[in-house]
Formats: sequence, C-alpha cells, structure tokens
Amino acid sequence: MAATQSHLSHYQFLPKTLARPLNQTPFSHLPFLSLKPSLKPHQTLRAVLSQNPAKTSQTTPFKHCFTKSPDGFLFCEGIKVQDVLDSVERRPFYLYSKPQITRNVEAYKEALEGLSSIIGYAIKANNNLKILEHLRKLGCGAVLVSGNELRLALLAGFDPTRCIFNGNGKLLEDLVLAAQEGVFVNVDSEFDLENIVAAARIAGKKVNVLLRINPDVDPQVHPYVATGNKNSKFGIRNEKLQWFLDAVKAHPEELKLVGAHCHLGSTITKVDIFRDAAVLMVNYIDEIRAQGFEVNYLNIGGGLGIDYYHSGAVLPTPRDLINTVRELVLSRDLNLIIEPGRSLIANTCCLVNRVTGVKTNGTKNFIVIDGSMAELIRPSLYDAYQHIELVAPPLPDADISTFDVVGPVCESADFLGKERQLASPAKGAGLVVHDAGAYCMSMASTYNLKMRPPEYWVEEDGSLAKIRHGENFEDHVRFFEACHVRLSLKEHSPRRQCCLAQSFFLAVDFYVVRSTVRPVDVRRNRRLML
Amino acid sequence: MAATQSHLSHYQFLPKTLARPLNQTPFSHLPFLSLKPSLKPHQTLRAVLSQNPAKTSQTTPFKHCFTKSPDGFLFCEGIKVQDVLDSVERRPFYLYSKPQITRNVEAYKEALEGLSSIIGYAIKANNNLKILEHLRKLGCGAVLVSGNELRLALLAGFDPTRCIFNGNGKLLEDLVLAAQEGVFVNVDSEFDLENIVAAARIAGKKVNVLLRINPDVDPQVHPYVATGNKNSKFGIRNEKLQWFLDAVKAHPEELKLVGAHCHLGSTITKVDIFRDAAVLMVNYIDEIRAQGFEVNYLNIGGGLGIDYYHSGAVLPTPRDLINTVRELVLSRDLNLIIEPGRSLIANTCCLVNRVTGVKTNGTKNFIVIDGSMAELIRPSLYDAYQHIELVAPPLPDADISTFDVVGPVCESADFLGKERQLASPAKGAGLVVHDAGAYCMSMASTYNLKMRPPEYWVEEDGSLAKIRHGENFEDHVRFFEACHVRLSLKEHSPRRQCCLAQSFFLAVDFYVVRSTVRPVDVRRNRRLML
Repeated sequence: MAATQSHLSHYQFLPKTLARPLNQTPFSHLPFLSLKPSLKPHQTLRAVLSQNPAKTSQTTPFKHCFTKSPDGFLFCEGIKVQDVLDSVERRPFYLYSKPQITRNVEAYKEALEGLSSIIGYAIKANNNLKILEHLRKLGCGAVLVSGNELRLALLAGFDPTRCIFNGNGKLLEDLVLAAQEGVFVNVDSEFDLENIVAAARIAGKKVNVLLRINPDVDPQVHPYVATGNKNSKFGIRNEKLQWFLDAVKAHPEELKLVGAHCHLGSTITKVDIFRDAAVLMVNYIDEIRAQGFEVNYLNIGGGLGIDYYHSGAVLPTPRDLINTVRELVLSRDLNLIIEPGRSLIANTCCLVNRVTGVKTNGTKNFIVIDGSMAELIRPSLYDAYQHIELVAPPLPDADISTFDVVGPVCESADFLGKERQLASPAKGAGLVVHDAGAYCMSMASTYNLKMRPPEYWVEEDGSLAKIRHGENFEDHVRFFEACHVRLSLKEHSPRRQCCLAQSFFLAVDFYVVRSTVRPVDVRRNRRLML
Repeated sequence: MAATQSHLSHYQFLPKTLARPLNQTPFSHLPFLSLKPSLKPHQTLRAVLSQNPAKTSQTTPFKHCFTKSPDGFLFCEGIKVQDVLDSVERRPFYLYSKPQITRNVEAYKEALEGLSSIIGYAIKANNNLKILEHLRKLGCGAVLVSGNELRLALLAGFDPTRCIFNGNGKLLEDLVLAAQEGVFVNVDSEFDLENIVAAARIAGKKVNVLLRINPDVDPQVHPYVATGNKNSKFGIRNEKLQWFLDAVKAHPEELKLVGAHCHLGSTITKVDIFRDAAVLMVNYIDEIRAQGFEVNYLNIGGGLGIDYYHSGAVLPTPRDLINTVRELVLSRDLNLIIEPGRSLIANTCCLVNRVTGVKTNGTKNFIVIDGSMAELIRPSLYDAYQHIELVAPPLPDADISTFDVVGPVCESADFLGKERQLASPAKGAGLVVHDAGAYCMSMASTYNLKMRPPEYWVEEDGSLAKIRHGENFEDHVRFFEACHVRLSLKEHSPRRQCCLAQSFFLAVDFYVVRSTVRPVDVRRNRRLML
C-alpha cells in the first residue's frame, strides 16, 4: 500500500503549477499514525484524530475493503481482484465492496447518535439502482438533483419524505413530481421559488421548503466543486434573506418553510469549515424563527473529502464532522440533514483495467490500459488524483519507473494518472484506479464508442454479483431505430411566436389540464408571481 | 450575430490566466473582412484568405446554416429555431443542418480535385448513425478509434478498405476485426505492432499498415488536443523508425507497409503547421521507399479548426489546407488521406436549450438553462469557447448584461459560457450553443441522470427529421434488470494466477479456437514477438 511517510492529501485539486510532490508537503505538522508493520493482511489501520486539537475523538480501527496480501495480490474483501478480472466478460469494470458501503453508512449513523437526523445520500455521486436499494435498506434518505433522480429514488424504495430536492435549475415538471410526492425542496433563487409555488398549485399540495443560503465560506477546494462562495451559481445571498421570507409568507397555501440549507462544496478536508458555516446558519435560523416561522431542519449539505492519495493522511471522519455541529444542533432543538455522497461511496470501489501495453516517447513512459476518460473523467476534468496500483505482483525482472497511465481514447486529455511510480507491467496485467465509487460511473460517457462498463460488487458472504449490465454496441444502435421520421412543426400565431415566455408555460398548461386543479394564469405575471 | 470588429479566434484554448478579452487581441494585423451591412438574411459572407500572404486563394461566399433574420429570429436553413423548440417533445436537443454537412464535404472534395485521396471522417467527433450514412453517401471514408466505431462504420455502409483504424491502445480483438475487414491500420507503438501481427495471424489476412510518426511539430492548441508533440502518448518517435521498418520486413506474411501517418492535434488554425509536418513526412517516405517499400499513402491526419468565436476571423479553408501539401503529394505520386472531424461536422449543429430562469449572486449574473455539462462538456473540460445566442428577439424592456450561462447540474463546473453579453432572457426563452456538432454529443454523459438528448436535422427540402432518439429514464433502469446474479469465479492454477501476462492471451486463445488458424504461441515471447 501507499507509503505512510508522506501524509499530504488536503489539496488534491491544486493547479498543476502549484502542485507539490508528495514528499514536499507543507502540512508535515499534522498528526498522523504510521501503519504498524505487524498488521494482519486484509486489515489496515486508519488514524481517526480530529484536526481540532481541542477535541479528541477515539482512534478506531478502520477496515478498508481493498488490501494487498503479503504476496502482492490485491483483494476486495476476501476476493482476489485478479480472479475477478479473469472471470468477468469484459474489461474495464467497476468493482465495489458491499460491506464497505455498509461500514461507511454505519460510521455516519454512529456519529449521528443522539440527534434527530436524515442521512441524505447524494444520488448524483453514484446512481446504481442496486446500491441505492442497499443504502435505503440501511436507513438513508436521498438527495436529488433532477426529476429522474427522484424517479430512481422512488424505484429504489426511498421514503420521499426523507428525500431532498436540490439544484439551481430545477424544472417545473420535476418540481410538480416532487410536490406530489412530499419531498423536501431547497429554494435556490427567486425564479426557483416562483416555480415551486407553481408546482404546489399544480400538484395541489403544500411543499416543505428549506432556503439554500450561500454563506460565503471558502471550502478550500477546486473551483469546480466549490459551491458556496458569494459568486456561486447556487443558493441565495444572505442580504436577500428577508425578501425570501416575505415571499414565503405571501404563499401560505403553497409553501411551508421548515428549514435552512447550505452546501459549501465537495472534497472538503477541514471540518472547521462546516462548523463556521453551521454557526452562520444557526444565526439565520434564529432570525427566521424570530419572525414566527416554525423552522426545525438544519441542512449542512455534504462534501466531506476522502483520502484519495492513500498517503495515510489524517482526514476528518463522520464523527469529527457531526461533533463540530452537535451542540449547535441540540441547542436549537433542530433536525439535522446531511448530504454525503463521496464520503459514503467513493472508497468502496475500484475501476479495474487491463494493461494493453507499455511504450516510451521522448522522456515519457506510458502504461496504456483499456480504461479511459470515457469511463472515469475526474483526472481530466478536475486534475484529480486517484491512487493507482497493479492487482498482482510484478514480473521478477520488472523495473520500477515513472509512468503516465493513459487510456486508448484519441486525445491527450485521456489519462488516469500522471507520473506514477509503478513496476513495469506485463501486457494483460490488471491495474486498478482506486476510490472510483463517486463521480466516476455517474459521469461516464461513450466517447470513442467505449460503451459504459458493467459493475460488480462483493457481497457480505464473499460472493461476487453483477449489479449493473455493461452498455453494448446494440444500445447505441437502438437510438437510431425507426428514426428519421419527418416531423411537422406546430402552428403558432404571430403573437405566440413573439412571446418568449410562452413555450415555457405550455408545460404549466399541460399539467393544469392533467391535474385538473385551478388554472394558474402565470402569463399575466411574467417576472415574478409574488 | 457576433460583432465583426473583433477577429480573434486562434487561441480559444488559452489558459484562463492568459486569456484576453476579444477586443484586446494581439493579432489585429491579420487580414479580415467585415460583414457587409447590405447582406441578405440567411446568408453571411465569410472571408477566405490564406494566412500565408505568399499564397492567395479566392474569396468565395460561404453559406452558413444558422442565420439571424432582420427581425431577430434564428433560423436553421429555412426553419425558425423557435418553432422547432416549440414542437419537439423535450429539451435540450441537438439541431443539425443536413445541407451544411453536404456543403462541408463538398468543400473538401473540391479542394482535393486532381489528387487521389480519401476523406476519412473521424467518427469520434460525432457517431450519429444517420450522419454517418449521409457522409458515406457523399463519398467519405471513415477514421476509427475503437472496434465499436468500426462496427458502426460497417453498419453505415462504409467501404472498409476506405477506413483507417487509429489509436494508441487498440485492443487485439478489435484489430482482428479490422484485419478481417481489410481496414488500414496505423501502427502506433511496438506493442501495437505486435498486436497487429497477432491479429493478422488470427484473421489469416495480411494487414495494410501505415506508421504513425510523431513529427514533434507544435500545433499551438490546448494541450488536451495536441497529439503530435515529442512526449505525446501517440505515435512513434522519429528515431525509432528503422526499428519499425525492420519489424515490418520481418513479418512479410502479416504486414504490408503502405504509408506514413501523422496527426498533430485538433482545433488547428494555421495551415503552415500541416505543411511543416508534410515536408517531414515526405522525407520519411523517401527514406522508407529507399529501403524497397512500396509506400503510396500519406496520411496527414485531421485537426483543422473552426471559427468558434463567430468573430469573422480569417480561418484556413479545406482548400488552403490541401493547397499547402498538394505539390508535395503530387511530386511523390502519393494517395492523400485526411482525417477531418471537427471541420466537417462542428458548425452544422447547435445545442438548443430553454432558459429556466435568471439570477444574480454577488457581482455575477446567471442565465440558468436546461442544457448542461452532461450534454456538452467542452467548455468545462477544455475551457472552450462556443458562441451563445438567443433564438428570438428579447422582450422590449430587456437589459443587456454580462452573464455566465450555466446548467442545472450540481457543480460549479457546469457552465456553457462565461461572461457573455446577452439581453436578459425571459423564462422559457430559447438559447443556442453554436458549433456543437463535434465532440459534444459524442462526449455526452448522463450525469445527474440528465439522459442524453434527441437529435434532429433540417433536410434539403426544409423539413425537420429526428435522427436520434433521446435516451430515457427507462434506458437507465434497464441496466439493472435481471441483474444481481451471483457469479462464480474461474478456477486458476497457482501458476496461472502468478502469470500476469496470462489473462491477456486468453483472448488470443479464444480467437485462435474460433478462427481455426494456426495457433500463435505468444506466451513464449512475452515482450515482443519480433
């Protein structure tokens, strides 16, 4: 496994120009714990120390699902990854540990003991239906960012009243479904509030809403996954709070304000940031309550980072996170909603690839694998580090060199890792990209017609099960079957053509007709209905 | 349309820190032609001046498919985009002009007159089957980067002997299919050559190969789309050429060397770069011929840029490109292969979206649309500029402001354009992202369960036809049907488990058995079979 001598992992998203080699970390003052040499195979020890020296949490053994045996083979729980590689019908593929998913949820549940809470799993991190069903059985709620994610959550059996609908661009038709099902909805903007009101009327149901407030706390992560800064596309600016409170008051039939929500970003590795935000949020809740609202939910979002570097770094645990806000939550008698995605699912999975060959160009060595940016785009998109290792011991004469690990996709963006120290692998060797459970398969494309891979997990009893079929060439061809039919355009009066707002509200008309509730003449009030 | 006063478009991929506003271009010495105010609607004039002052090419009127009418409506050929938006079943969607595809191919065909040539359309740019069928009917060959792209080309009716199989990580099973079908194969590395030899044996057919030589000519584009630098993952370094020639000589039954290939990158806006590379390549061909090889093909790859900025910039045409290499090609009596993708298909298409709402946070204004990085990732992935405009005139009281155009996907990477001057649109207004024909739909994901959109084109007779079904929620659920079956792992002897190279060659065994050709005992020669 990774050396424990280096322990940087906080800023995996630094721009290349600022990136430091692992052995030049400026964070060497942080506490860490070396791996004990006497550790048994299949069990590693992870340090669980709070970053806040004032608060100590207990050091508990952490069992991780992917481990190297003394003879150099990678195991997922009790199964040799090489055996899976040799058995499945195609490569690359995603391999999960179901028990690790359970352990990750249990860590949150234990951390939340004594609080009234909802663990809202962020489906966008991974939308495998089998995984969702498992998370639901473990007691999770779900965080949704589209109507399809809500449909999937319902299909997986989630209780909609333990689901939260998030997002800066929620569509009216999706909000109608959310209203019908009784899902919590986070209000993101003026127009979003307007749409939620319209959806409530169409559905004939009052919607439980939380205000997503943008606390402008810097999460110290890659700009692409920072979502709570003052210029973010997400959420409401603090100074607009009163406007939203007045808007809610003006719609007692449509909206019930039940709480406040913030979301700072993702890959966050300092729980102080959550505490800073929670302090601000509780102050807002005090203000809101002072105006007579019965506000009982604090939603602090998600975003806890994981140890992508496998460097033995000390990262905050769910307990560290919850403990920073526990007293605040209890002091106001609030229900706590959290929205973990990455920290529940990322470390339960590897992308398993096979080496196509090794080549050298100029000063660069390349390991070419069958996996690519089509299956796993995080390194290209965010310049993200994910740990890479071989699944079996190298050949006896293999040199250790510095390699770029690249896929077969025809562009230079197609890399899985850069400048990795690895033993030169033989053709056909297995190579895994670790921590691939979150924002990997859910972002996969079929670029270069590399169809999306199958997924497997190791069950509690150690058996292997397929949990998602691979996409096939035939799936692509199906998009063109019985296609190419000529369409006739709708006839519109000149007045209709000129009114840009019109087409949007066709959808409202449609729902009004379908739902047979009182019609909403939204056309007369183009800007805001308030 | 875009102002013609600014005319920078060469470096759309500059890092943000180096990016300049359009009106501060350092390239103002370049020739350009203003749009005449008297131009008829539905017709714009594009300047066609060579960048090389020594060579002049004629100025021809260029008919583009997307034009604004005097009353401010966007048309695709003769169809009002607003009408399409109001008629189709869902948004966003891709809208193409079939006549524009034809015009783009004709421009290459005219440019190539007098040369023996293959226009190898790069399927990776856009893999719509209906578009492929159309390109095939127009006389194109195809450039493939995976076995599935080869299968799709065959399905579209392409003549496989006018197809070229490219890539740094071609899989053995895909090479076997290519060998069986008689496709040209570009040799990318030592291990690639080894696999081509194995594939030829398995298929029982000699393979026509070209050597992909890495000429180390800087294409002056974003690093992600530069593919011919000396440290690129692609191709063969010049100094290794003799090794590959000897390897080909050693396999007269399996390989016939027919040409040389290079590919510099993509979005290239200076044809001098192609000429510099072609001069080098012809020198290599002379060297290769001197050793007795009958080498008749020069493949100069693709990569011609387009005017993403809609700034009226002077960009090289197909004729400019071909004219820079024409004399070289004729002087050696070569067949010319070109591999255009972007320059054939990018400007034939828009992504058509609807505005969900407008919001302001801090100093930032946002137009939130229903399209996102899931449907179109180029702005996020490459920091690429694609021109954005509204499909209909703004409301009379609409202010013009600076907006970020963002989607509903829950991360800050989800933008389609930054700092665009646009009239504040009403809810439901149509908004297009231009030049979306290449590397947009082919890179689409289903992130946030935004299922991949439908595609339409305007036919020659002005009618609208659907050319790809949208992906549905049910398509996602199908991946999990009858899933979750437990698998048994194959039994392997300890020796087998230890041999990393083994699993790779199981595929060879499989093909040997299936093809009943002479077995290849590749195991004995793990490194190279030469």
